[in-house]
Amino acid sequence: MGKTNAGRFFEDYRIGQVIRHAVPRTVAEGERALYHALYPARHALYSSDEFAARCGLESSPIDDLIAFHVVFGKTVPDVSLNAVANLGYAEGRWRLPVWPGDTLRSESEVIGLKENSNGKSGVVYVRTRGYNQMDEVVLDYVRWVMVRKGDLSAPAPETVVPELKTVVPPEDLLIPEELDFTEYDFELAGEPHRWGDYAVGEKIDHVDGVTIEEAEHMLATRLWQNTAKVHFDATFREDGRRLIYGGHVISLARALSFNGLANAQMIVALNGGAHANPCFAGDTVRAWSEVLDKAETDAPGVGAIRLRLVAVKHGAEPFTLRGADGKYAPEVLLDLDYWALMPL
Amino acid sequence: MGKTNAGRFFEDYRIGQVIRHAVPRTVAEGERALYHALYPARHALYSSDEFAARCGLESSPIDDLIAFHVVFGKTVPDVSLNAVANLGYAEGRWRLPVWPGDTLRSESEVIGLKENSNGKSGVVYVRTRGYNQMDEVVLDYVRWVMVRKGDLSAPAPETVVPELKTVVPPEDLLIPEELDFTEYDFELAGEPHRWGDYAVGEKIDHVDGVTIEEAEHMLATRLWQNTAKVHFDATFREDGRRLIYGGHVISLARALSFNGLANAQMIVALNGGAHANPCFAGDTVRAWSEVLDKAETDAPGVGAIRLRLVAVKHGAEPFTLRGADGKYAPEVLLDLDYWALMPL
Amino acid sequence: MGKTNAGRFFEDYRIGQVIRHAVPRTVAEGERALYHALYPARHALYSSDEFAARCGLESSPIDDLIAFHVVFGKTVPDVSLNAVANLGYAEGRWRLPVWPGDTLRSESEVIGLKENSNGKSGVVYVRTRGYNQMDEVVLDYVRWVMVRKGDLSAPAPETVVPELKTVVPPEDLLIPEELDFTEYDFELAGEPHRWGDYAVGEKIDHVDGVTIEEAEHMLATRLWQNTAKVHFDATFREDGRRLIYGGHVISLARALSFNGLANAQMIVALNGGAHANPCFAGDTVRAWSEVLDKAETDAPGVGAIRLRLVAVKHGAEPFTLRGADGKYAPEVLLDLDYWALMPL
Repeated sequence: MGKTNAGRFFEDYRIGQVIRHAVPRTVAEGERALYHALYPARHALYSSDEFAARCGLESSPIDDLIAFHVVFGKTVPDVSLNAVANLGYAEGRWRLPVWPGDTLRSESEVIGLKENSNGKSGVVYVRTRGYNQMDEVVLDYVRWVMVRKGDLSAPAPETVVPELKTVVPPEDLLIPEELDFTEYDFELAGEPHRWGDYAVGEKIDHVDGVTIEEAEHMLATRLWQNTAKVHFDATFREDGRRLIYGGHVISLARALSFNGLANAQMIVALNGGAHANPCFAGDTVRAWSEVLDKAETDAPGVGAIRLRLVAVKHGAEPFTLRGADGKYAPEVLLDLDYWALMPL
Repeated sequence: MGKTNAGRFFEDYRIGQVIRHAVPRTVAEGERALYHALYPARHALYSSDEFAARCGLESSPIDDLIAFHVVFGKTVPDVSLNAVANLGYAEGRWRLPVWPGDTLRSESEVIGLKENSNGKSGVVYVRTRGYNQMDEVVLDYVRWVMVRKGDLSAPAPETVVPELKTVVPPEDLLIPEELDFTEYDFELAGEPHRWGDYAVGEKIDHVDGVTIEEAEHMLATRLWQNTAKVHFDATFREDGRRLIYGGHVISLARALSFNGLANAQMIVALNGGAHANPCFAGDTVRAWSEVLDKAETDAPGVGAIRLRLVAVKHGAEPFTLRGADGKYAPEVLLDLDYWALMPL
Repeated sequence: MGKTNAGRFFEDYRIGQVIRHAVPRTVAEGERALYHALYPARHALYSSDEFAARCGLESSPIDDLIAFHVVFGKTVPDVSLNAVANLGYAEGRWRLPVWPGDTLRSESEVIGLKENSNGKSGVVYVRTRGYNQMDEVVLDYVRWVMVRKGDLSAPAPETVVPELKTVVPPEDLLIPEELDFTEYDFELAGEPHRWGDYAVGEKIDHVDGVTIEEAEHMLATRLWQNTAKVHFDATFREDGRRLIYGGHVISLARALSFNGLANAQMIVALNGGAHANPCFAGDTVRAWSEVLDKAETDAPGVGAIRLRLVAVKHGAEPFTLRGADGKYAPEVLLDLDYWALMPL
């Protein structure tokens, strides 16, 4: 037993500690193809080298969410093996595109600690950075999780709760230098709606649904080298069900949002997110979006749009989010808040 | 709702209209690997760069049916979202090989319209062309579908039914310029049977069977960016079953036909085809072929063979096709008529 | 029926016969991505081009077990189509890394024949060699299978049972010339345990479990072009179950062994192996290892470790192997004996 990883417990984290996560990963065309097999992904910038070239890029980058999942997956053995709950995300920014052939690795810095009053667990805040093979940061985000204590007698650390922005300000968004939407081909992209056609407060029902299979979410979760037992081992939970990785629902909902948001091409910031209820195989997932904000950018032809992306289970009324008690309705799986780039 | 694609209805089509379909797609080695995971594909020309080089090609092309599925998939949001039935194919020709790294897009021209006597739907004939990034046509075919009317009061268009060839004449087959089977290695290809060994009228039972899983047909159908709801959403049909994309059955049957037709390497024409009965997960699919015709070609060592490929469900008698009433037997899933190239 | 492959029967084999197996296969990044989706594979040398470069290699090689499965898969139509049982492996050596873009093919030489006393079947021993496109042997191993007789009146051949080493001697291990573990990054590799930290006789419980789905083992088995009916056709066995390819269990167990053996990077020899009991979809597979031996090598920083890798079904007691009767316990799926390379 001494050779295997038992994971870190709450008392093992220290403010300022930097954890260099294991197993770098080269991502290439194979991951791109699998992403398109696992999700109904159709955003043209990630589907076609030609389309990407017309937008100023050298070729089609690796999907933003592949980058997120790979960077996130590496943190699991060090951050969430003994986690009770994934509580939130903030201040996520995509800083550089990831290209086929790039090798990604992750580091997390502990930026907050707060023991729970029950003395049995605590909240750990980490800022995770994804690096490419040139040691450039391609992505960073803050995540906080509730982690069990291994030794209940360990003293509580001094409470440090980081001040986190509830939204990444539009002036902090990082846009690839070459990106240029002035020659954008709306017809090839699939929809005529440009940035100016969306109004703050507008809601879009993305119409389509996908019924999830065990094989699919496991293929995806393994591909990102996320090894949390609960996703793979039907004997782990008493009910014999495998919990679906929250990121699988993110990617599925994002892909479904093509229908109505085909031109919200590039994800540049993750303002926040909640995995409101667990998702299991057999669930049919639908999605809706709300335009939360809009902003101009300096890049030619490029506007920013802040979107709420909500994934719900089949049977939910249109635009279901919270009940009268202010809590997420039971059919809500995901409530994600992000910035995307869209042609003007 | 105004932002999402409701699809075209019968009254939205006009003769001569050209629809430029959305979301170009770069296909590469990842798609090749997935094709081999999804189907028991073993035709050597598409499995080995070395084998392809010995046949005069620069490397192993992308499977002909990947090209077909990708080109077809793009037409779905514009042609078959409100389709009631996929009625037929004709005059399909593969014009150029697709190479790893190529980017495909599709256009469809409306070449026929015929409103049904019930006034509720009509038949739309389109000629679909698949283009690569040099705007060369790699594939074209005619397809006709029955499409619902959205506005029942819309007037019927003038009836235009295109004259379609029931078979692509052998002299119209397009063979890659470099293709040369004179150094063909039958041992590595898997079978000794050459073009001269097949007789018109000969039938071959391909022996093997594959039981289909939901995850597999959905992975495949998504990979071709075919978004028809009925393939993915178990809540869509009253019986809770997901209808399997007809192209999945085509690829499965073609791969099974290796056993007996290992040397029918390259598909060059689609003369016709019918998805005779729906296919569902759990079905065990088998296949048989009949040699319909043979023709010589100008390419060195290359003969053409016209084949009927029939996919049936487990339990069908050998060579089941039609009942006494002339209709397809209920176990028949697919009846496809194509030309392939084979070493002399 | 005359065109399809009925497979070889026991009486069809001759000592010294060399069978050149069909369908060469080019393996590349797509297969690498799929391998990571199908198995929880995390060994850094096969995950990251950067990590591999730091170990002296030009890039990340194709996983050793991909090479094994591809080479093995090609032998199935010629060796095991009419096999009753896969009896054993011996003298397996990985001779050269396989790189993305390489094309693999296989040949098998019949080195032993022994008819069973019942006169209905016999044991065939073959030495299978996998070649790359330069006709270099990348892998070879001996395998013996029990094969049915097709013609029960065929005379028994002279019995020849090859003398096989029970273990590949460490001095015979072939290590890639460039391999150098002196700059090995244990943190990125995922565990601090080096060659010196493992003791002969030590056992490691790899903790994690994976519940197997039909779609997954079929995707994998097809990817290696292994066409044995019993893996794909639910109508083949009376109980309606599809038998899982033994190699799927090997790869799954090897990937699970990361947790405790993250630094056992490269497989260089297969000393022996038994598929102790059949595996079916729905089984939850766990793994444990035992250190059987250790040896030094001439390569800088590189030690060799001989490991027993055992895959068991959920519910097995820790380190389950054999019952009091000396037979494998019913929960044991696999007992594999191999040499791996590990940093000193």
